Amino acid sequence: MLKNPATKYVPFVPFTRDYAERTWPSRRITQAPIWMSTDLRDGNQSLIEPMSVERKLRFFEQLVKIGFKEIEVGFPSASQTDFDFVRKLIDEKRIPEDVTIEVLTQSRDDLIERSVLSAVGARRVIVHLYNAVAPAFRRIVFGMAKDEIKQIAVDGAKTIKRLTEQHPETEWVYQYSPEVFSTTEPEFAKDVSEAVASVWQPTPERKMILNLPATIEATTPNMYADQVEWMHRNLANRESIILSVHPHNDRGTAVAAAEFAVMAGADRIEGCLFGSGERTGNVDLVTLALNLYTQGVHPGLDFSDIDEVRRCAEYCNQLPVHPRHPYAGDLVFTAFSGSHQDAIKKGFAQQKADGVWEVPYLPIDPADLGRTYDAVIRVNSQSGKGGVSYLLLSEHGLDLPRRLQIEFSRAVQRVTDETGREVTAEDVYTLFSSEYLEQRAPWRLIRHQIAGDEDGGVAGHQFRVEAEIEVDGERRIVKGEGDGAISAFVDALGLPVRIMDYHEHAIGTGTDTKAASYIELRLGDSPTGFGVGVHRDIVTASFHAVLTAVNRHLKSDVTADEEAREAA
Amino acid sequence: MLKNPATKYVPFVPFTRDYAERTWPSRRITQAPIWMSTDLRDGNQSLIEPMSVERKLRFFEQLVKIGFKEIEVGFPSASQTDFDFVRKLIDEKRIPEDVTIEVLTQSRDDLIERSVLSAVGARRVIVHLYNAVAPAFRRIVFGMAKDEIKQIAVDGAKTIKRLTEQHPETEWVYQYSPEVFSTTEPEFAKDVSEAVASVWQPTPERKMILNLPATIEATTPNMYADQVEWMHRNLANRESIILSVHPHNDRGTAVAAAEFAVMAGADRIEGCLFGSGERTGNVDLVTLALNLYTQGVHPGLDFSDIDEVRRCAEYCNQLPVHPRHPYAGDLVFTAFSGSHQDAIKKGFAQQKADGVWEVPYLPIDPADLGRTYDAVIRVNSQSGKGGVSYLLLSEHGLDLPRRLQIEFSRAVQRVTDETGREVTAEDVYTLFSSEYLEQRAPWRLIRHQIAGDEDGGVAGHQFRVEAEIEVDGERRIVKGEGDGAISAFVDALGLPVRIMDYHEHAIGTGTDTKAASYIELRLGDSPTGFGVGVHRDIVTASFHAVLTAVNRHLKSDVTADEEAREAA
Repeated sequence: MLKNPATKYVPFVPFTRDYAERTWPSRRITQAPIWMSTDLRDGNQSLIEPMSVERKLRFFEQLVKIGFKEIEVGFPSASQTDFDFVRKLIDEKRIPEDVTIEVLTQSRDDLIERSVLSAVGARRVIVHLYNAVAPAFRRIVFGMAKDEIKQIAVDGAKTIKRLTEQHPETEWVYQYSPEVFSTTEPEFAKDVSEAVASVWQPTPERKMILNLPATIEATTPNMYADQVEWMHRNLANRESIILSVHPHNDRGTAVAAAEFAVMAGADRIEGCLFGSGERTGNVDLVTLALNLYTQGVHPGLDFSDIDEVRRCAEYCNQLPVHPRHPYAGDLVFTAFSGSHQDAIKKGFAQQKADGVWEVPYLPIDPADLGRTYDAVIRVNSQSGKGGVSYLLLSEHGLDLPRRLQIEFSRAVQRVTDETGREVTAEDVYTLFSSEYLEQRAPWRLIRHQIAGDEDGGVAGHQFRVEAEIEVDGERRIVKGEGDGAISAFVDALGLPVRIMDYHEHAIGTGTDTKAASYIELRLGDSPTGFGVGVHRDIVTASFHAVLTAVNRHLKSDVTADEEAREAA
Repeated sequence: MLKNPATKYVPFVPFTRDYAERTWPSRRITQAPIWMSTDLRDGNQSLIEPMSVERKLRFFEQLVKIGFKEIEVGFPSASQTDFDFVRKLIDEKRIPEDVTIEVLTQSRDDLIERSVLSAVGARRVIVHLYNAVAPAFRRIVFGMAKDEIKQIAVDGAKTIKRLTEQHPETEWVYQYSPEVFSTTEPEFAKDVSEAVASVWQPTPERKMILNLPATIEATTPNMYADQVEWMHRNLANRESIILSVHPHNDRGTAVAAAEFAVMAGADRIEGCLFGSGERTGNVDLVTLALNLYTQGVHPGLDFSDIDEVRRCAEYCNQLPVHPRHPYAGDLVFTAFSGSHQDAIKKGFAQQKADGVWEVPYLPIDPADLGRTYDAVIRVNSQSGKGGVSYLLLSEHGLDLPRRLQIEFSRAVQRVTDETGREVTAEDVYTLFSSEYLEQRAPWRLIRHQIAGDEDGGVAGHQFRVEAEIEVDGERRIVKGEGDGAISAFVDALGLPVRIMDYHEHAIGTGTDTKAASYIELRLGDSPTGFGVGVHRDIVTASFHAVLTAVNRHLKSDVTADEEAREAA
């Protein structure tokens, strides 16, 4: 590291004098902004492996299900995949009536034409034009004066106006982004934006969107808020503009920047689920929405099954959500310390009495997200490496996935609560066996046959499974089909099972090798739960894992019923 | 999700009227705060697998190397491991002269006594007492009135004063935390804090630390800043107090909260590397420090080898750093889009000319962190799943670790730059082979023997390797020892090799199975680089991976030398 960074790094200062007129620090957010997901555009363009059409479709449908009404679906002039995807959405009538798609374009006539072409026939489309107006771009990248830069923006608006007027069957909304607004002189950003607006001529009934991107987060978020409030207060024809922000997370403060921008007058936020996007990501819309929720404001987005949303994003992005990610991470509803667990227990009791959520250490009720609170106890915590998962791994070769580690800790907790003593190393495997491996009723696998056809690409994989199953002591033959052996097996069972996650590994080497399979699933509306199978054959291990998960779900329903009866 | 969260969630409002006297939004940070790492305490207590003594020591030494002068080393009254660890640091004289350790305690005489006992003999110790003063805790958890709560804090201070006076050979510093300051009435937090201070009687020469924890982040970070500024302005005897903050990240805004707290008057920040800690983590000290750095302010911490710091944290915490984590994530210095790559190229040229860092899309020079900028090109990007890593996996079973995917993309980029055309699917494997698998000179493995002794626990593992190696055409026998076969092999080579990361997997099944090994290492002060080995035997594959990495490092040095000669 340099001795003196001040000679190399020059901080950006938006205003020559302090913007003391700011009012945003005294404001609160009392209603949700308009949300725009750019997962399929800004998110997608920053992935190691961009999404296939199948993944894009799955993500789009998830976004619709959450309740997004504006979705940026691609950059059709830059990518044939994106062009085809937009056409597919429109031609196959996959866009719900109340959802508006958005397409991004640079300001060149041929690119604009292609972008408009991609979206023709949709009910309502936002055409999003950007050009770089920030000083570093003017000077270093383009070597252009302010007037030339401004002309690019104006020309683009004119072309879009002309081309879209040829397709009046679609309602066209115009969006303009002065690129890297966050490092641009506010006066120049305002000047260009107003010039663009004077081409489009928005009205309060037919607004245009002005989006202020922090393409690179360059300052503490209070300065971005100052910039946004200044624009909010000084922009001509403000009542005809939807003021939008697009924060990135280079300094780790995008969520704060977005919240302050709304306090400063912004109407709309662009971002991605779980902060996907270029480099450090776009602002995380999940955190923003749930932050509102915990303040008593409804975000208008539905994250009541956050695990499903998370797994969709992880599958499509092929990137994980961090275990400490707010609201969604594996560890954020977990309490390891006894004093925390005790306080939380008392908080739950209190909440039951008066209905107000005031549970220490839990800013939100995990049940509102379809999750559960986990009190994790440690076995032999003094040893520092005597934990449950360490013992199972070192003594039995079982490498539990993180969420299963947490889930199993509840069983351990139950034993310590009941017996009043710490479980020993020997207890751990016995408990794990009885909790998972030995859950062989009511559903039990007798034998199975698989026929697989590996031709025809990923979507074409077809597997057929025929299995003999014992259910409550009665044997039956079942048959199913699917993309893989496990999905075919689940199909055969005829139960409302959704596989949420799947891990497997080998135990041992050589002729003694066994496979361990861990499957996390939902049965109907149940919370997610694990099953585990260990077998010489990996497929059999997986089927065992599915059935032990099912059996554990059925058992916990029975337990819940019994508890309800006792309470009544 | 609830229809109306307002009936369940009541937002916390710190002041009955707006705190309009705030000045922090007009301030800037011009010097670094005092940093305190609580990785070994708050970080450690929230891990699935708490750190062993070996991991704790390694982490402690890393923190010292970065430049932390205050390190919370444990909660000795709550854990025997922590007690023993603190004693070990002191008894084995492992604490540098300019480093102060800190121990946390609750306010009970026996716990305080044990905490003081753990730290006796150190040169300088911060004893950190906390008790819960927030309304939810008073009412729900303890059922106590304000006076009783205050008395607990005062009694604790008295006990610490009495006990530490018995050990004048150690310089004792007192730290008090009114717990969940962020959800406490500011007036009551001030009242308790002043009562505690009047026991300790700090002076400007012998200050005490008053720490204001956002144990749970409950509001937008501007409100926390208001609370801190109010304390800063109203606290009695302020000149004798070091005002400290301890933000958590429940709302994803801990970094902003900490920055604003400093602008609001705080002198000191407690947090963890990469945001480890309870639930969503403590504030991330790496991001905070490097945010300062990019604003031209030296943080006083050294992250010039951020990869090493990251790997230490990942090893000790057994949790990953996310690929989009600011400054440290795998993807944050990566540009996928052509227009970004072009702008960055021009920015680098400009920076070479005037020395000022103004490179678009890169807020910091990756070289300042020991990292490199990666321009990733995609092969057949139109197909959406025709990328380099997809091809290597689907056609050759090679599942490249993420950083290797990025590294290899540079080789692909080189070919497209040189030939002016896109590489084809067939080119990819040829290129991968020549770039990695065939790097068999100057160092080449002829044969090897391993003797392993698996007895004696993790630290006791001893492996001995004897190998015949060809170097520049000349054969020699080398011998080495280590914790594992790879470290023994590295020892045998006698080169300044540091293994940074390691992945392996099987290719194929049955009798045809091979192993692929990917090893990331440094040679001397080189940036990290990968080697790859594929072999029927997993250990041989790993040795090949080590040597191909070494050969690639040597080759790139030669290339660099040649370039330097040409330039001269």
